[in-house]
Amino acid sequence: MENIRKIAVLTSGGDAPGMNSAIRAVVFSACNLGIEVVGILRGYDGLIDFETAPLSMDDVRNINNRGGTILFTSRSDRFLKKEYREKAALNLRENGIDTLVAIGGDGTLRGAIDFKEEGINVICIPGTIDRDMGCSEYTLGFDTAVNTATEAIDKIRDSSISHGRCSVVEVMGRKKGYIALWSGMAASADAILLPEKWQGDFDSVTDAIKKHHTDGRDCYLVVVAEGVTDAEELAKLIQEKTGIESRVSVLGYIQRGGQPSAKDRMYGSLMGAYAVEILKESRKNRVVAIKNDLLVDYDLEEALSLKNNSLDSFQYQLSLRLSE
Amino acid sequence: MENIRKIAVLTSGGDAPGMNSAIRAVVFSACNLGIEVVGILRGYDGLIDFETAPLSMDDVRNINNRGGTILFTSRSDRFLKKEYREKAALNLRENGIDTLVAIGGDGTLRGAIDFKEEGINVICIPGTIDRDMGCSEYTLGFDTAVNTATEAIDKIRDSSISHGRCSVVEVMGRKKGYIALWSGMAASADAILLPEKWQGDFDSVTDAIKKHHTDGRDCYLVVVAEGVTDAEELAKLIQEKTGIESRVSVLGYIQRGGQPSAKDRMYGSLMGAYAVEILKESRKNRVVAIKNDLLVDYDLEEALSLKNNSLDSFQYQLSLRLSE
Amino acid sequence: MENIRKIAVLTSGGDAPGMNSAIRAVVFSACNLGIEVVGILRGYDGLIDFETAPLSMDDVRNINNRGGTILFTSRSDRFLKKEYREKAALNLRENGIDTLVAIGGDGTLRGAIDFKEEGINVICIPGTIDRDMGCSEYTLGFDTAVNTATEAIDKIRDSSISHGRCSVVEVMGRKKGYIALWSGMAASADAILLPEKWQGDFDSVTDAIKKHHTDGRDCYLVVVAEGVTDAEELAKLIQEKTGIESRVSVLGYIQRGGQPSAKDRMYGSLMGAYAVEILKESRKNRVVAIKNDLLVDYDLEEALSLKNNSLDSFQYQLSLRLSE
Amino acid sequence: MENIRKIAVLTSGGDAPGMNSAIRAVVFSACNLGIEVVGILRGYDGLIDFETAPLSMDDVRNINNRGGTILFTSRSDRFLKKEYREKAALNLRENGIDTLVAIGGDGTLRGAIDFKEEGINVICIPGTIDRDMGCSEYTLGFDTAVNTATEAIDKIRDSSISHGRCSVVEVMGRKKGYIALWSGMAASADAILLPEKWQGDFDSVTDAIKKHHTDGRDCYLVVVAEGVTDAEELAKLIQEKTGIESRVSVLGYIQRGGQPSAKDRMYGSLMGAYAVEILKESRKNRVVAIKNDLLVDYDLEEALSLKNNSLDSFQYQLSLRLSE
Repeated sequence: MENIRKIAVLTSGGDAPGMNSAIRAVVFSACNLGIEVVGILRGYDGLIDFETAPLSMDDVRNINNRGGTILFTSRSDRFLKKEYREKAALNLRENGIDTLVAIGGDGTLRGAIDFKEEGINVICIPGTIDRDMGCSEYTLGFDTAVNTATEAIDKIRDSSISHGRCSVVEVMGRKKGYIALWSGMAASADAILLPEKWQGDFDSVTDAIKKHHTDGRDCYLVVVAEGVTDAEELAKLIQEKTGIESRVSVLGYIQRGGQPSAKDRMYGSLMGAYAVEILKESRKNRVVAIKNDLLVDYDLEEALSLKNNSLDSFQYQLSLRLSE
Repeated sequence: MENIRKIAVLTSGGDAPGMNSAIRAVVFSACNLGIEVVGILRGYDGLIDFETAPLSMDDVRNINNRGGTILFTSRSDRFLKKEYREKAALNLRENGIDTLVAIGGDGTLRGAIDFKEEGINVICIPGTIDRDMGCSEYTLGFDTAVNTATEAIDKIRDSSISHGRCSVVEVMGRKKGYIALWSGMAASADAILLPEKWQGDFDSVTDAIKKHHTDGRDCYLVVVAEGVTDAEELAKLIQEKTGIESRVSVLGYIQRGGQPSAKDRMYGSLMGAYAVEILKESRKNRVVAIKNDLLVDYDLEEALSLKNNSLDSFQYQLSLRLSE
Repeated sequence: MENIRKIAVLTSGGDAPGMNSAIRAVVFSACNLGIEVVGILRGYDGLIDFETAPLSMDDVRNINNRGGTILFTSRSDRFLKKEYREKAALNLRENGIDTLVAIGGDGTLRGAIDFKEEGINVICIPGTIDRDMGCSEYTLGFDTAVNTATEAIDKIRDSSISHGRCSVVEVMGRKKGYIALWSGMAASADAILLPEKWQGDFDSVTDAIKKHHTDGRDCYLVVVAEGVTDAEELAKLIQEKTGIESRVSVLGYIQRGGQPSAKDRMYGSLMGAYAVEILKESRKNRVVAIKNDLLVDYDLEEALSLKNNSLDSFQYQLSLRLSE
Repeated sequence: MENIRKIAVLTSGGDAPGMNSAIRAVVFSACNLGIEVVGILRGYDGLIDFETAPLSMDDVRNINNRGGTILFTSRSDRFLKKEYREKAALNLRENGIDTLVAIGGDGTLRGAIDFKEEGINVICIPGTIDRDMGCSEYTLGFDTAVNTATEAIDKIRDSSISHGRCSVVEVMGRKKGYIALWSGMAASADAILLPEKWQGDFDSVTDAIKKHHTDGRDCYLVVVAEGVTDAEELAKLIQEKTGIESRVSVLGYIQRGGQPSAKDRMYGSLMGAYAVEILKESRKNRVVAIKNDLLVDYDLEEALSLKNNSLDSFQYQLSLRLSE
């Protein structure tokens, strides 16, 4: 280990359950090595303005069960400009810090790649509920978001069954359908529409519901990722084409918050501890990732070029077969 | 007790958690008196078509924790016409039944009043998540709906705090703001807009947020009942007038479903048992209700004329003072 | 309103969900009147040692959803002695405080009665999960505890049904069986043993299970309040006498904690606001209470002499009939 | 695919959340191939007595969110004897079935190995909350059990912090400490005692607490797997040696039941679908497993000889470092 005395940690981009566990693990692991940790507030924006909070072990001891991020977060437009990144680097160096742990998604990763040019060593930890990073099979927040979505859809289905209706539920995921696939499977959806697969074939959806209805069932559940189509329109179409009363629910921001699931707390803890392990070994500009359910790390730039195919087509097919 | 041998039970209108506990209690109490219970499916519509299911104690033993209603429900347009009510009454009498327990809201109560003219004795049990019946301080489903809404708003606030945003959350309640008041209070909302109080004064809302923002806080939470205004419009207005990023969440159907809370199971059980108590005493055409937190009953027609003011203005004022 | 400038607030005895909402409401209501609030840590013990924390609106804004009490709590033996109460009163007066809001159960109430002799005006708020105070139909924490117990018993019953076993579940409540009655009813227990009713008749319990077993059912659920008998012994006895495999679960401390239910947050808020209302009217030495589901208040000494019979024998009987 | 017309499915051993999703997926996948599915009740015992239930798609459509197993379960002593296994095989063959899907833990696997000698093709699916099977990184029920334990410990810690106590919490896991490790990490335990590591060094536990106490903290949380030591004794020892009030909680059977988490529903679905995939390919006597977070399968006998080290020592060390 080089002589690291002080490091900074921040969360950036959309907040995700489990970020607090990662923060806690960074602080615990660093403090155990005698390294001081400074919390940067509001992501890269707070780095530019040097808004900070000291982070002792006592400050983070009991934060594992808290939703959101205790360090707050933002999407920083200023950090896209070199002049602000220079200011941010100067702030750090003036305070005796040349190492930053940044927790967030691909946007955070891109910020880190730009920032290392200012001579700051950046270690990234993947945190985004959408699980849409190519470099890691798992990203913090996904498990909690899926459980929240599943429980919400369970409730909607109770009402849907009682009334004999079709429910269309929109979940998060503009480009990746992981939340839709998992929550749809878990909540026994009859159809799941994923951005990766959707080709605009509305007829196949309404035909399936018509067939279903002919078979005597009057309850039907469609889970659709937000990136696929307008859920409101879809519900209207279904009602027109099939005659079954259809209602739409957009789950929205409830998917971002809430007490983290055990998995997000555990993986946040492991990733945070692993980030400090990388520092201990004097390695630089790495992103922590999960591959084959084990901890690995990649160079920042390599990480951005990777494609996530952990749930390979075979498993996709298996599971989708159950919703037809 | 008159010589009652067989009774029917149905759920009608919007489904509400706790209806299953009421069904269970009716079945257990009736069976203990040697009375047979027939379940009518899909509310008054099922009465017209005589869609039924036998209900033994074994059929209902473990349904307390299930959301929705095991008997399904509907809003029946046909039942508004006398010819269909005559058919329904005929169905019952041909099957040796002249007593019906109907679980639902004011629409169900009105159906019961019409139906008793056909010579059927109807006992009503109040079940609607909105708590908008004049005859009873409490209606089944309210407690579960409020807890669901509160937990959802808790999650939204996590994200809202992390990002420093204003969140506008729309909850159910077209005419009555009980869900908004309770969930808003419970989730520490900064402003709660109730249909009973709202007079279109958008400026007072945006001014409060501006003041708030000037004081240095960037997170704000507005809970609005669906009957008040368009939540989407409100969020846009807030963003325009105050400059704080504002996001809207419409909770929607998740508020109807879900495993019932302990209170809804307990009150459903008490109300169901009490309904059979009324039958035992050979009383007719009554609605079970809660007054001063105790079980009472009213004549069906009297019930419709009552006004609910259990949460009197003094308590309203007390609680609203906390959200300013 | 007399010229009150500063008040103190503490929590004492067993912690209960909803205490934080009461603290928050006291702070919000007092601050809105220009009154400063000092938090006393660790109950009456902290009063003796004058361990304090300032309580601004920002300090308590988002505590409604937290379990336990942010002010910590204790049972103070020292406070039973006059010399320590004198010291505590001196501490308060030296800091310009002659009014105390104390949140807790009957022990807290007794402490308050003793303490008012030192010239301090004490307003009590009932908080104890057991709902075992004579002065108030409702005490903070009960609703959360019942929901926690109910959900736990639901889980135990899943396993019990899968295996065809008898489960004996012990819940809290040494003298009052409210938690047992409510959670037992809500979770569809086959037998509920309450300290108020239990007369040692083990045979009636085992006979019912034997009959039950003869009827062909192999799953049975007994909920027993901790004050009734040793749950472990009971399970052994059932297994011996009936031959059905029996397992015991003691729910224990999980019943005390957890995020408060909406009701505990709402009632905590109302009670806290009402306590400040009493101060505003210059009334002294009162306890806030719920009677007929409305806010009332009593003189401290009168309060201790009251008996709680909100769930009168008729309703008890109704509900118990459902578990036979 | 050979000409399979009818298969049987059963659950055996301890019940585990997610078993229902596996059953559902077997039924959906088989029905889609035109294969009929017969449910065997109460595990291998029900196979001997041929207690069955037909399983259509409608029977299992909405069971993903149910705890326990809809097919019931048992540990069968009779099935250890060849004569009963012969009877079971005869039952199956007389009903035109020569393929069985068995969901359970290592005991179930051993039963399957014995049973295949009777000429029945057995496909196993790993289901046990303890995650103590050598052949699979993941076993159904673990994720739900860990979340249940974590939420329970969260509640206990609320109360523990409020009172300034040491809490000792015993979780399931006689031989494997996975539940203890995960729930302890997730709930921010100060010490986690695992059967794999424990060498009886009580002094190191009490010394750490003493040091902790000297540092000024009065709240301490120990999570201990049931296989390690008597939790009650441990709490007494801690109180004696350190002077900190210590309380014990045994979580017990709540860890087995409850609505399955999204992961257990998803993995149950995948494993069930994969089991039918194996049948389709005419492969025999296989166990479905997870390796590197992907679906694989092993020969039954090979499976029993495998050792699970998915959470390798490096990750163990990382995480344990956070609880010191």
